[in-house]
Amino acid sequence: MAANSLLAGAVQILCVIAYKGEEGTNAEFIATSLKTNPVVVRRILKSLENEGLVEVRQGRNGGVALKRRPADITLDDIHKAVEGSDGLFALRRNGNPRCPVNKSMKSLLTPVFAAASEAVEKTLKHTTLEHLVEKI
Amino acid sequence: MAANSLLAGAVQILCVIAYKGEEGTNAEFIATSLKTNPVVVRRILKSLENEGLVEVRQGRNGGVALKRRPADITLDDIHKAVEGSDGLFALRRNGNPRCPVNKSMKSLLTPVFAAASEAVEKTLKHTTLEHLVEKI
Repeated sequence: MAANSLLAGAVQILCVIAYKGEEGTNAEFIATSLKTNPVVVRRILKSLENEGLVEVRQGRNGGVALKRRPADITLDDIHKAVEGSDGLFALRRNGNPRCPVNKSMKSLLTPVFAAASEAVEKTLKHTTLEHLVEKI
Repeated sequence: MAANSLLAGAVQILCVIAYKGEEGTNAEFIATSLKTNPVVVRRILKSLENEGLVEVRQGRNGGVALKRRPADITLDDIHKAVEGSDGLFALRRNGNPRCPVNKSMKSLLTPVFAAASEAVEKTLKHTTLEHLVEKI
């Protein structure tokens, strides 16, 4: 995959929420930090909410708040929220069932791809939202 | 990014070439293993050729051969060939220059993203094309 900035966007959203603190914030305010459309922010907030990282309150007094302390949110949690937990690399779905090379790919690549995903997870787990916010 | 199977496809292409050995092969034959269009194979072969992993000969007696021994081609080389070396995660390009959170993102995320890319590189370097082909 080409490098994409979805993780960076989600991290920035959570940093804005953590930085604003108790008074809370909303998608419109967060969007001014990212210089993007609130729709983009809401879409990412939905993924973060599904993963239990934020609570989004609708309506007039709506807004968004963290559901865990910043020390308990790692970059791996954020990565999983926005990218799912399918891992970094996927096997191919099609292939010739009679080709010996094709038949070997699944068993050969599965452990390598799993190791690569685990290596990224381990790295991203080292950094918490708190680590980032305390340096802002 | 969502997991994609580009690396798996490129690995399979190189395994077919290595498995066929000296007599060589071509995009049409490789495509039958992947059960895909030769155009797809040619596009990936182009990336592998640009990275110095294969030699593609055009014309009637055309075909494709490895330019290095399978023991000297790692999955990291193949990954770099097909995905470039931009790293796994990108920073966002836009952002509010007056927002303290936005201003901090580059310096905070660059080392974390670099560490994640390095972790994947290190893992993929452990596996060579030879490791895979000798198990087919």
